[in-house]
Amino acid sequence: SSYEVGERLKLARGGQQFLAMYSSVVDGITTDPAAMVLPLDDHMVHRGHGVFDTALIINGYLYELDQHLDRILRSASMAKIPLPFDRETIKRILIQTVSVSGCRDGSLRYWLSAGPGDFLLSPSQCLKPTLYAIVIKTNFAINPIGVKVVTSSIPIKPPEFATVKSVNYLPNVLSQMEAEAKGAYAGIWVCKDGFIAEGPNMNVAFVVNGGKELVMPRFDNVLSGCTAKRTLTLAEQLVSKGILKTVKVMDVTVEDGKKADEMMLIGSGIPIRPVIQWDEEFIGEGKEGPIAKALLDLLLEDMRSGPPSVRVLVPY
Amino acid sequence: SSYEVGERLKLARGGQQFLAMYSSVVDGITTDPAAMVLPLDDHMVHRGHGVFDTALIINGYLYELDQHLDRILRSASMAKIPLPFDRETIKRILIQTVSVSGCRDGSLRYWLSAGPGDFLLSPSQCLKPTLYAIVIKTNFAINPIGVKVVTSSIPIKPPEFATVKSVNYLPNVLSQMEAEAKGAYAGIWVCKDGFIAEGPNMNVAFVVNGGKELVMPRFDNVLSGCTAKRTLTLAEQLVSKGILKTVKVMDVTVEDGKKADEMMLIGSGIPIRPVIQWDEEFIGEGKEGPIAKALLDLLLEDMRSGPPSVRVLVPY
Repeated sequence: SSYEVGERLKLARGGQQFLAMYSSVVDGITTDPAAMVLPLDDHMVHRGHGVFDTALIINGYLYELDQHLDRILRSASMAKIPLPFDRETIKRILIQTVSVSGCRDGSLRYWLSAGPGDFLLSPSQCLKPTLYAIVIKTNFAINPIGVKVVTSSIPIKPPEFATVKSVNYLPNVLSQMEAEAKGAYAGIWVCKDGFIAEGPNMNVAFVVNGGKELVMPRFDNVLSGCTAKRTLTLAEQLVSKGILKTVKVMDVTVEDGKKADEMMLIGSGIPIRPVIQWDEEFIGEGKEGPIAKALLDLLLEDMRSGPPSVRVLVPY
Repeated sequence: SSYEVGERLKLARGGQQFLAMYSSVVDGITTDPAAMVLPLDDHMVHRGHGVFDTALIINGYLYELDQHLDRILRSASMAKIPLPFDRETIKRILIQTVSVSGCRDGSLRYWLSAGPGDFLLSPSQCLKPTLYAIVIKTNFAINPIGVKVVTSSIPIKPPEFATVKSVNYLPNVLSQMEAEAKGAYAGIWVCKDGFIAEGPNMNVAFVVNGGKELVMPRFDNVLSGCTAKRTLTLAEQLVSKGILKTVKVMDVTVEDGKKADEMMLIGSGIPIRPVIQWDEEFIGEGKEGPIAKALLDLLLEDMRSGPPSVRVLVPY
């Protein structure tokens, strides 16, 4: 019975602390990890017909919720997933889920799916699209130590799918597993035209021309990183202080990337991590550089005390 | 609470009859649709780190279970998913799930996943890999009426992922939705080199040279279809009866495909469906051909009374 399944699920739960989950299938929020489930016939599960996004919870604020929310709505549209609610209602439900969780420092993850109904390929018989959200307690430890990355041998997704944050992350998983097997932090995808694309779940950036120019690969064929874009905006402060000359989004070849003065990984869970080695080559002097550090400080400050456009207060 | 979630899930269940579900997370089989759930933190759900396969249940026998089971084990290996049990135990659990369901005509679907544990990208912290299976009551109605297909504009998966039956089926879903929007039965994927690949969840075959040669695109860059391969074996009977001259697996160009005498879709849920129109071109005389009919008859007979190698008796 579902009661018995619930009991057994209780025993099976992992270490991470899942504090609250919202499901539109049951139209409610639960704080019982054993109830943090979804139907097997949800098309997100058996066909990968679902998209997701995240937002950090920092000191009781959701960081860049609106930017991530806009992105999941774009992803849903590209994946032809109708919205179960309008944008404001989705936003309200997400904030409410964090509020119910009582979590002031952690991460919020949420999914839009074609929904349950059957095990067919087409969503034409799906009952209704669904929204799921979960709050996870995470200690958001900043690690400034430089890491090694490797070039990923896993085929990169076609742009039409790389730009959609869908749950079809098997390529990303295999790229991450390949990097870990080589003792690296992440794998870097390179496009067929030889330009640097992105990591498995983060963007990359470089500092070139004597440490004076910040360059980031264009977002056309990769996932449009919210944190990466915020970093580009914040980086202008370094230009006005003369620490940087320019900030550019442009194609970067692997050759130029490996000859950069600095390289860094940028992603909401990271948020900025220096890269000191790529495959066999050391980047710059093979140690953490000043620009990555300066950008990290700007980002952390933004997370703690940035403008309302990037920080949404959670009413507990 | 999980009890309340269970109750609400009961209300949310769709039309299709889900008769029994096995989950290794709870180490048991349930016949309560409300309990046919899985943890949201299963990496199959949030990262698509899961593979699946199917088998038809016909007159109390599982059709081609071993062939499909071998395929999911290959998929799991390619997706770097360790097995929760050995092959024989998986097979025993699948048969037991069908037995508990009491279903004599339906379909069995099953998944292998990296398992629950967290919401990270890497499976390194997953608790243990999981097996799920579900029995669905389906009336296996054979429809001999010819259909229309269209060339899919959705980017085809790289071969490394097309040959793995993972839950990363968003491309397949979008291809199916595109076809449905054009009033077609399915979309046909064409490889970059111009050769015909496959449909969204089925293989294709052609009859050429005056209706005497059955040709099927090679399986190197597409999913290795169990039913398609069985059809190739059965087709030899038509050769020995002089109905066909040869049966070949070879590259087929779109041009040759569209000039074929017959075209057909082959998949376990179909099992053979004539195609009478591809985009704007009619295939052959634009009506159902004799070879598709003859192959369908052979396949149906195989399903009903084929050798033990393709029919596993379910002990109810």
